Amino acid sequence: MRQHFASITLQTRGPALYDFTDKAKRIVEQSEIAQGLLTCFVRHTSASLTIQENADPDVLRDLASFLDRLVSRDEKLYRHITEGPDDMPSHIRSMLTQTSLSIPLRDGRMILGTWQGLYLFEHRDAPHEREIALHLIGE
Amino acid sequence: MRQHFASITLQTRGPALYDFTDKAKRIVEQSEIAQGLLTCFVRHTSASLTIQENADPDVLRDLASFLDRLVSRDEKLYRHITEGPDDMPSHIRSMLTQTSLSIPLRDGRMILGTWQGLYLFEHRDAPHEREIALHLIGE
Amino acid sequence: MRQHFASITLQTRGPALYDFTDKAKRIVEQSEIAQGLLTCFVRHTSASLTIQENADPDVLRDLASFLDRLVSRDEKLYRHITEGPDDMPSHIRSMLTQTSLSIPLRDGRMILGTWQGLYLFEHRDAPHEREIALHLIGE
Repeated sequence: MRQHFASITLQTRGPALYDFTDKAKRIVEQSEIAQGLLTCFVRHTSASLTIQENADPDVLRDLASFLDRLVSRDEKLYRHITEGPDDMPSHIRSMLTQTSLSIPLRDGRMILGTWQGLYLFEHRDAPHEREIALHLIGE
Repeated sequence: MRQHFASITLQTRGPALYDFTDKAKRIVEQSEIAQGLLTCFVRHTSASLTIQENADPDVLRDLASFLDRLVSRDEKLYRHITEGPDDMPSHIRSMLTQTSLSIPLRDGRMILGTWQGLYLFEHRDAPHEREIALHLIGE
Repeated sequence: MRQHFASITLQTRGPALYDFTDKAKRIVEQSEIAQGLLTCFVRHTSASLTIQENADPDVLRDLASFLDRLVSRDEKLYRHITEGPDDMPSHIRSMLTQTSLSIPLRDGRMILGTWQGLYLFEHRDAPHEREIALHLIGE
């Protein structure tokens, strides 16, 4: 049994979902762990992770629009407003999605379904550099 | 240290929570991994996973009703509408719940609390065959 | 490769986020697992887990207020009402947050970002004793 650590850095440009499936695939291949478990962990509280449909980009836009409607930017609703009107909604949007994802590995591949892709969900308006830590265990 | 892989297939009949706790228990027993970690991963983006109360079936109905109220089927809200009015809401409902669950194993059992059960959450109207991949590691 | 099991018990006093980062740190140190994976699992369905900003306590209050607005206590909306007006909303709030968290360990530490803390999210009004099970694997 072995472990492998890696990290993926993404440059974001505003609230949207950023696909990192291919980057994760390459790390799985490099790890040479064929059977095991991959954990992805985002090191931020205003960006998050989700596994979603990778076929129609409109799905990604609709997911972002839904959260935009659900989580108001009205500053009267919040106490934490010093970092801008998009900051507290970003924390809420992160809470409603995922900080970590766990994906089994078989025969050197993530066992994703046909339509599943891995996404970083950026919730802030300004461009950000985001880091996803990856841990692999197996053999 | 050993690993064990398995998969659970469930036939669904519309939006509801489907209990797979007993099926997962049997796989844990068959694996003969007594101390370790179980990961459940659903290979779909319009069905998801959750751990919820297993005592009163009304809890499950109320959970499904809540998501039904929260995530409108009004097609005017979405761009992705080609797969029917229940499709985009299904992706959103999946995003708000879980794709993977991680559960420690002690003495050959999942360390679930008294009232915790494992559920597949089907979000689509039509019957579907859903696959949950299981990964166990431990000894 | 080794495993380590532990558990954290927290006394809660009403709906709020309770920081258990330091307790988790101590368990990581005691485990003497330097490189590996930590899984936290809450053994309840009316309290949950989340990783959130640890700098400004107002963020935590705003997170709790958001869920309070999002998940109504109006009993006319629910069938499961025998355990009080805060019970069914607690299950819904748990569903929308996390039951388990997975955090890679490097050099004896959780690889948390600068602003990330681990929180138990109590959703019920009455004081409760809550248990979080921890599983560590690595070397």
